[in-house]
Amino acid sequence: MEKIIIPAYEARLARVSAGERFRIVDLEGCQCVDFWAVRAGDLTEWASAEHTRVELNRLFPVVGEHIFTNRRERMILFEEDSSPGIHDMLVAACDPPRFRNLGFEDWHPSCQENFFKAASQVGWTYPFLPQSISWFTNIPIHPDHRIDWDPSPSKPGDSVVLRALMDCDVIVCSCSQDVVPINGGQPTSLALELLGA
Amino acid sequence: MEKIIIPAYEARLARVSAGERFRIVDLEGCQCVDFWAVRAGDLTEWASAEHTRVELNRLFPVVGEHIFTNRRERMILFEEDSSPGIHDMLVAACDPPRFRNLGFEDWHPSCQENFFKAASQVGWTYPFLPQSISWFTNIPIHPDHRIDWDPSPSKPGDSVVLRALMDCDVIVCSCSQDVVPINGGQPTSLALELLGA
Repeated sequence: MEKIIIPAYEARLARVSAGERFRIVDLEGCQCVDFWAVRAGDLTEWASAEHTRVELNRLFPVVGEHIFTNRRERMILFEEDSSPGIHDMLVAACDPPRFRNLGFEDWHPSCQENFFKAASQVGWTYPFLPQSISWFTNIPIHPDHRIDWDPSPSKPGDSVVLRALMDCDVIVCSCSQDVVPINGGQPTSLALELLGA
Repeated sequence: MEKIIIPAYEARLARVSAGERFRIVDLEGCQCVDFWAVRAGDLTEWASAEHTRVELNRLFPVVGEHIFTNRRERMILFEEDSSPGIHDMLVAACDPPRFRNLGFEDWHPSCQENFFKAASQVGWTYPFLPQSISWFTNIPIHPDHRIDWDPSPSKPGDSVVLRALMDCDVIVCSCSQDVVPINGGQPTSLALELLGA
């Protein structure tokens, strides 16, 4: 088993083969994970929030369901969840204009920048990033369709286990958001455990 | 005032300048509109559902609110709505694999194909399309986060009026979905009225 530590405010990329499982661990608790997956060797296919919603008729997969690609292929099986089960794939990754709008004038780390840096390792040059699959991320939806940004209910050591159904490059990012309270005001580290087949 | 008719199952592109208003009309009722907007002359910036949700803290703008770009700039002001106010920007545009999964073996028109055809007129070659802003589209969200595909409540002549805040190319598409009941089983035509400043 290979264990990759993702420091706070950073991201790491790893290749997983079809059939292999991996675990994403919130080491210290209350930490949102921005997650992306791209088909290995084919940058035109990636894990897609909007296609997954359609194929599942649900806003987020539950254990036993899949994350689908933009070609509506099953890419990842959501196998286990030891967290309270609160996840999101509605809100855009944080990025420089997000922090500008929140009052920062200077550079601030962001999930968008971390995505582009990690994805460039496998040749990603498109001027966009997919909607992230955001584990442990608490964005409640009210009946009037307003959304909130609440602290993650994830506890230290909480994790999800995923199984790749195709060869893919996965990016795991410790969300940089330290203004709105989703990470409890202080981003912390994660682990990515590559569990094999 | 220029009036462009969009036949059922088709799309049209038009350029609107900053400050200009336009109306999208559901001519025959119960017709979903897949809508996209790209900054004129800069294909790296477009109307973005996921960034709009963040900037508004809401799943869809209400009248008086804006649609934001992937750079979090105000692109379009939602000025008027004579429909029941049911719109969506959660579900991916219909595409060939959607119809394959719904049982079609041969070609079927789709919003994705219509987007690529229309957007190619201004040079769009990326292998992706943004999440559509889907006017009159009825995707109820249940408390357990399941979603449904209900017929559009839009009546003949219902419309929305939008104002461009930057020069942009807009694509208006009569949704091709004739399997699930969102268009009442039979897509129909739309109008795009360019109203000037």
